[in-house]
Amino acid sequence: MGTGPLQGILDEIAAEARDSLERGKVADYIPELACIDPDQFAIAIARPGQPTLTAGDAGVAFSIQSVSKLFMLALALGRLGDRLWTRVGREPSGQAFDSMLLLELEKGRPRNPFINAGAIVTTDAVLEGASPREALGALLRFIRAAAGDEAIHINDRVAASETATGHRNLALAHYLRSHGNLSNPPEMTLGTYFHQCAVELNCAQLADAGRFLVGGPGVPRLVSQARIRRINALMMTCGHYDGSGDYAFRVGLPGKSGVGGGILSIVPGVASVAVWSPGLNHYGNSKLGTEAMERLTARTGWSVFGPEVAGG
Amino acid sequence: MGTGPLQGILDEIAAEARDSLERGKVADYIPELACIDPDQFAIAIARPGQPTLTAGDAGVAFSIQSVSKLFMLALALGRLGDRLWTRVGREPSGQAFDSMLLLELEKGRPRNPFINAGAIVTTDAVLEGASPREALGALLRFIRAAAGDEAIHINDRVAASETATGHRNLALAHYLRSHGNLSNPPEMTLGTYFHQCAVELNCAQLADAGRFLVGGPGVPRLVSQARIRRINALMMTCGHYDGSGDYAFRVGLPGKSGVGGGILSIVPGVASVAVWSPGLNHYGNSKLGTEAMERLTARTGWSVFGPEVAGG
Amino acid sequence: MGTGPLQGILDEIAAEARDSLERGKVADYIPELACIDPDQFAIAIARPGQPTLTAGDAGVAFSIQSVSKLFMLALALGRLGDRLWTRVGREPSGQAFDSMLLLELEKGRPRNPFINAGAIVTTDAVLEGASPREALGALLRFIRAAAGDEAIHINDRVAASETATGHRNLALAHYLRSHGNLSNPPEMTLGTYFHQCAVELNCAQLADAGRFLVGGPGVPRLVSQARIRRINALMMTCGHYDGSGDYAFRVGLPGKSGVGGGILSIVPGVASVAVWSPGLNHYGNSKLGTEAMERLTARTGWSVFGPEVAGG
Amino acid sequence: MGTGPLQGILDEIAAEARDSLERGKVADYIPELACIDPDQFAIAIARPGQPTLTAGDAGVAFSIQSVSKLFMLALALGRLGDRLWTRVGREPSGQAFDSMLLLELEKGRPRNPFINAGAIVTTDAVLEGASPREALGALLRFIRAAAGDEAIHINDRVAASETATGHRNLALAHYLRSHGNLSNPPEMTLGTYFHQCAVELNCAQLADAGRFLVGGPGVPRLVSQARIRRINALMMTCGHYDGSGDYAFRVGLPGKSGVGGGILSIVPGVASVAVWSPGLNHYGNSKLGTEAMERLTARTGWSVFGPEVAGG
Repeated sequence: MGTGPLQGILDEIAAEARDSLERGKVADYIPELACIDPDQFAIAIARPGQPTLTAGDAGVAFSIQSVSKLFMLALALGRLGDRLWTRVGREPSGQAFDSMLLLELEKGRPRNPFINAGAIVTTDAVLEGASPREALGALLRFIRAAAGDEAIHINDRVAASETATGHRNLALAHYLRSHGNLSNPPEMTLGTYFHQCAVELNCAQLADAGRFLVGGPGVPRLVSQARIRRINALMMTCGHYDGSGDYAFRVGLPGKSGVGGGILSIVPGVASVAVWSPGLNHYGNSKLGTEAMERLTARTGWSVFGPEVAGG
Repeated sequence: MGTGPLQGILDEIAAEARDSLERGKVADYIPELACIDPDQFAIAIARPGQPTLTAGDAGVAFSIQSVSKLFMLALALGRLGDRLWTRVGREPSGQAFDSMLLLELEKGRPRNPFINAGAIVTTDAVLEGASPREALGALLRFIRAAAGDEAIHINDRVAASETATGHRNLALAHYLRSHGNLSNPPEMTLGTYFHQCAVELNCAQLADAGRFLVGGPGVPRLVSQARIRRINALMMTCGHYDGSGDYAFRVGLPGKSGVGGGILSIVPGVASVAVWSPGLNHYGNSKLGTEAMERLTARTGWSVFGPEVAGG
Repeated sequence: MGTGPLQGILDEIAAEARDSLERGKVADYIPELACIDPDQFAIAIARPGQPTLTAGDAGVAFSIQSVSKLFMLALALGRLGDRLWTRVGREPSGQAFDSMLLLELEKGRPRNPFINAGAIVTTDAVLEGASPREALGALLRFIRAAAGDEAIHINDRVAASETATGHRNLALAHYLRSHGNLSNPPEMTLGTYFHQCAVELNCAQLADAGRFLVGGPGVPRLVSQARIRRINALMMTCGHYDGSGDYAFRVGLPGKSGVGGGILSIVPGVASVAVWSPGLNHYGNSKLGTEAMERLTARTGWSVFGPEVAGG
Repeated sequence: MGTGPLQGILDEIAAEARDSLERGKVADYIPELACIDPDQFAIAIARPGQPTLTAGDAGVAFSIQSVSKLFMLALALGRLGDRLWTRVGREPSGQAFDSMLLLELEKGRPRNPFINAGAIVTTDAVLEGASPREALGALLRFIRAAAGDEAIHINDRVAASETATGHRNLALAHYLRSHGNLSNPPEMTLGTYFHQCAVELNCAQLADAGRFLVGGPGVPRLVSQARIRRINALMMTCGHYDGSGDYAFRVGLPGKSGVGGGILSIVPGVASVAVWSPGLNHYGNSKLGTEAMERLTARTGWSVFGPEVAGG
């Protein structure tokens, strides 16, 4: 599909998003995020060797929140390899992102690295060989290299806001620690975790940063082809919490959402797509973002689950 | 990839399976299945417009068991369309195939059509407009058309064996009924369900029968392209119960397993792959079958999660 | 406390019940019970060596339902002794009377003999050495001896009504069977269970029937003093399902409720008290019955948790 | 029962405890408790107007741990009255003392004031109108008045030891806070809670301190008769976590255990009994202590569930 029609599709989708009446609810448990204007929407597509296409508010930076788990996972796998899987599983949890139920039934081993408990363990694993400053430095270097943009940074106010109010995550971290599945003091691991969640990107930067998961030639080669597939597999089965099955069903692409309203989805071998809109559906994933992804894949025919047939 | 190397890969995989010392445990809760020889293994690949390739015991018929849920789902969606989703969800359950825990927490609405409770509801939905005989007739016609083989049949002894011992499924059916999510008497719906599970196919037939999910030209067109994608999506997130994430991670293809030791996996646009070996891993999925699929995808480069790069 | 003031207290309580505006909801899942007039109320007190006192509709027979579990437990302990506890626990479940959640987590061993699963196992244990007819005959003989009334019988229409609609109990029985914790076919054990639940007593008969748990001289000696204590202990911690703690807190006596609206409570060494009113609270226990027991104990000072101080 | 035979019974029980080979396992998650000598045992009985009887190591102080929840509950009810029940329930949980499962299912409202989450809420409620120092001062005054001993104190080293390692309790506190059911910073409430658990008493002091729950004349009157009954009821249904039903069944008295190996049980109107032995059974309650209580009640006939019949 050439640039022309694709840009047209993005413009259409952005216009439809602008006209949406139901926008979901902005996350309010992190005070700094509660005041975001819910009327914003952006979409961007990055393809190997082609200019990044955008529509909507694609230059507005937002807090990537849980999308950061993806980058930290890539970093952790690079440092620990398969040792990581001794501490965290690879199965969808069927529960909310901050649930403690399965964590108790399974004695402190989180189901996967994308629910909060599993992401906290992943960050903790990176901290085994690095100070918080070093770990966050490595994460920023990774994201900057992936996006090809040295200006990417962490919003300290958002990180501080989460630190002050993150009782659910503190509960998870202390619970993990009580089961011996946290090597560092909860405050240290969570301090790092809250900062990683506070990385700010705009939609174009996020699409660019996702290119390392597209695979094939012409994109930053930060992880091996085998690992790309595995990370995409995890995004597919676990990337949207207890809405992962629905996202796979409706969108048909691996994706990772964040409570800031961002979603990064990968069309393997073809493109990295980022959408952003702050209002969330009841799973805690961007409402307009999910709908936009559904429209995009319907119109482009992109899906990992069938040959590319637009309108199919 | 041409036929030559692919046949060589299949032969290699069959040889490796033959040499395996750890073969898992044959399902023993259905008496008729408990006496199957665990030393058997088969693999088959069907591609649009090409002869089906096989290795191992590909002519030995086996009980497809839960792989039948796939065909019944396609039938149910054809008859009811999206109305089916009012009675069953589309999310991985994170629990065993016959778990009642989530069913209770979610008041009788099964998580997805591939765990037993959801499959029972799916069969029950088909029975809304058809007698058991008609429903099973329609299912057999569907599978025969998909496989291009009129000889496919149901093994009545296996069905009878399950009927006599299927207390866990009876518990699920009565529980669904108590929540008003079963329209027919439990014995009628389960009678149909046990017969659908007792369909017998050999590995070559199963690979052929799966071609309707490959999509694109040259394969039986039994459902729309859009529906192909959605069924494949459900296979990816829910097709291996609480081992679905692991299968996606290791194999990277949508797949549906059965307790008879069969697995059907789809390479969208490319091929339908069937493997069979009766010994099961602790999730209740074929042990050697899963390992064979992992080897096959590693050597062919097949994966929905990255561009085709053999050995990548 | 002499007869005079006690009769006055009963009359007061019956009058207060008559004036109640909020009467709860009659159980509607058993069709034969759904049509009971909710405006009825009765209370009766039986004391060793004294005439049974009553107020309200104490001559109207009602379905004792789960109160029967008490008598079947006494029978089962008489026949099996402590062997019963290998199949069922003695702990409150913290869940509803027909919950499957803990049954799954604890692999088919019910928490206690008063939740439905545990009562089904208890009945099944009695059926190890007796046919359903013999078991029900023995149960009737036990209740008749306890109440001193040979006219007590089973209402076959109620039993048939439950048999036709008891899907939740069938789910429990099949689930128990699948875990090997049911020795007889589910239909046989449940047929017996539904008949035991359909025993009919009026309030005066129920109070009389409860005297064997009062202990001490002057009451039918059907079980040992040690067993009396243990059955009362189980009634205290488990007799009102997930409302047991609340009943102990508010009433302070061991008690067993039934979905027909009856409650039997024991004042050890002093009296057996029966109340009946068909409307249920959200735990499934008689609403006016519970309130009446609370008033009775407040006015008499009866409680196992403190010395008798009326108004204390 | 006169003093003579009762002292003889205590001496017998202490001798039997001394000869026990199976002593359970000392709690090791609080470092300061892990080094306690498991060979110790004590028993003491306090009756209104009579000298306290003891046997074994009744003068050795131990950490009362969760037995303190009883005194803090009495204090909280004195200050808040029934308002406390808006924040915590009165039902047995059926789960371990530090479980998060029900807390999640019930959205941060603990089942009862004796599991850890409920006790933390109870302490937090007292802190609404008092600083930690004032709350602990009031608790010490209460216990000293109850025991009639001004020397009772808190062991600061034990409190510090819990503070450093109490990750499970920190998880509970942060989780409660995230549900809005903790008014104070987790560190403040838990700091108070850990100090309350670190109150030290010897067995004679604990029996004396329990007299306020015996009721009737001749004992310290710290709470009303009605409240005595309610606290005893809660001890009966919830005082031994998921072993409460078993304790009621075997011992027949309200009781509250602590992980330090102490148990306080009440014979309403008659006596307060304390036992202590550091080794725990699998519920986390004193193993020899529970057995001693079972022997004591068998030999004295004490039980709330039947008239007093020694040997009955």
